[in-house]
Amino acid sequence: MAVYTEVSDSALIEHLTKYDIGELSSIKGIAEGVENSNYLLTTTKGRYILTLYEARVDTNDLPFFLGLMEHLAQNGLSCPLPIVMKNGETLGTLENKPAAIISFLDGFSVKRPSADHCKELGKALAQLHMAGEGFSIKRANALAVADWRPLFEKSEKRADEVIVGLSDKIKTELDFLERNWPHDLPKGVIHADMFTDNVFFLQNKFSGIIDFYFACNDLLAYDIAICLNDWCFEPDWSFNITKARALLGGYRSVRPLSQAELEALPVLCRGAALRFLLTRLFDWLNVPVGAMVTPKNPSEYIEKLKFHKGVNSVALYGIDVNKVNS
Amino acid sequence: MAVYTEVSDSALIEHLTKYDIGELSSIKGIAEGVENSNYLLTTTKGRYILTLYEARVDTNDLPFFLGLMEHLAQNGLSCPLPIVMKNGETLGTLENKPAAIISFLDGFSVKRPSADHCKELGKALAQLHMAGEGFSIKRANALAVADWRPLFEKSEKRADEVIVGLSDKIKTELDFLERNWPHDLPKGVIHADMFTDNVFFLQNKFSGIIDFYFACNDLLAYDIAICLNDWCFEPDWSFNITKARALLGGYRSVRPLSQAELEALPVLCRGAALRFLLTRLFDWLNVPVGAMVTPKNPSEYIEKLKFHKGVNSVALYGIDVNKVNS
Repeated sequence: MAVYTEVSDSALIEHLTKYDIGELSSIKGIAEGVENSNYLLTTTKGRYILTLYEARVDTNDLPFFLGLMEHLAQNGLSCPLPIVMKNGETLGTLENKPAAIISFLDGFSVKRPSADHCKELGKALAQLHMAGEGFSIKRANALAVADWRPLFEKSEKRADEVIVGLSDKIKTELDFLERNWPHDLPKGVIHADMFTDNVFFLQNKFSGIIDFYFACNDLLAYDIAICLNDWCFEPDWSFNITKARALLGGYRSVRPLSQAELEALPVLCRGAALRFLLTRLFDWLNVPVGAMVTPKNPSEYIEKLKFHKGVNSVALYGIDVNKVNS
Repeated sequence: MAVYTEVSDSALIEHLTKYDIGELSSIKGIAEGVENSNYLLTTTKGRYILTLYEARVDTNDLPFFLGLMEHLAQNGLSCPLPIVMKNGETLGTLENKPAAIISFLDGFSVKRPSADHCKELGKALAQLHMAGEGFSIKRANALAVADWRPLFEKSEKRADEVIVGLSDKIKTELDFLERNWPHDLPKGVIHADMFTDNVFFLQNKFSGIIDFYFACNDLLAYDIAICLNDWCFEPDWSFNITKARALLGGYRSVRPLSQAELEALPVLCRGAALRFLLTRLFDWLNVPVGAMVTPKNPSEYIEKLKFHKGVNSVALYGIDVNKVNS
């Protein structure tokens, strides 16, 4: 949830003259995205999302994010399309903040995805990976394997406040992942945060992906691992193999996975679980005064990590090991 | 700003089957209203506001609020219209909370109203007062003159933390207002919170009023006093007599004001200033842990109260005292 910057009507009306999207009809601050201020903007021509980029976002990254949405939309992925101003740019300034207007996507996220939703998600993720090909701007993953240890060190001394022994467990896991992380798998643009809140459906069919503000270049299969962690566990944190099979099946129906990618899934899933464990742990231990957001409990990802550590075969993700190349 | 209750897609889809408003297209938590959870709901048939009533709202008041919006809309005022369910009711239950769906109003609030906006506001306020006639349910003002002293007593000991001497000043003002409050002026339904955020405009013309959750039965002219306090002071808290003249002129072009109502304006304005001073003072001194809203500084209303205490003639509100009956 977030609306940090108040946008005055006069500044907004002035700002809209830079676009060809009609006149202001209504503006509502919306509780979407935690990093930026977002507004649902209605004009005489349609509905849009107005985003003001707050201090936590590196403005150097904005051409990547906006350019990527444009590139993906042009390559057939259903995602927000940045609206171009009369001067040809997509990034403007409003209330002294970098600001963009993007198209509005119909659809809504599902809180408890079914196997069918997971299959749709898998297909959409593969479409995203293929649509990302040829995008010229690059952005390193700011939360890649090499970044996890420095991130952990910020929470190390207090990690045991969450669960006694957590600090040691994380250190052991970091040692393992740094030694065993695959580096020669297919790379490309990944979303890196394709949680259920960022994927929209209509009539149980995929209708669009939002929030590209963690997107970067990294291993494509790592994006699958992030999704397996968020989409395929039940509320009691048990793993639903049927959903995993559907997710991977949907993905592979659009983009085949190599044997190396499949075999790397357990370690990639461990990495994805640790990555979200580490950011949640940090946020949990560092709630700012007057915070508008309750941090998510890191325990969820401690449990997920434990599951993946026990996976000795991709069969546990629903992959038929005898038909890996099918 | 507020979104307290999370609404799951499955519960919402089920809830919508009770209405004839089409199928769910999109749902966004919006930062509107501080007492309730509000969502902008889009269906295949249109746009609506979904409100879940949180614990701070007395559910016994909901038939008044919803019935009032219906009554006012039916009498030609542009305000949200509660949508009737197939069972004939406007109040349902969603996520275990009382819930209503109301129509969406186009338009946006102006941060710095002009004299023209104030004139439009005055006309709309008078329309509201006239449209409220004949509404059968009654609701006492929970923040009427008799409620101010008990409210003050909750802040009394700490009031001087804001400004030294504030506690004594408020006591003196309470004594004055309790002795001098008019009781025989025309009464009816008042909005009681018609601040700039609750009034929408399109092309500088009034387009609608929202947020009726302070509405009640009280002196009609007291509603004008609340508006004079919010609409006619500049950001430096100086009083803009041109805006006041426009507001009162707009009002009187729709509903005439009696000499008694005009003469009561200074004391009503003092009362309105004190009422908002007292609630802001309480909120300022009692910020809940983890609050999502920064309380507004009470100093603004200390200054406004000071202005009204110096008003010895309605001429200072832009009323031509020689033409009071014109």
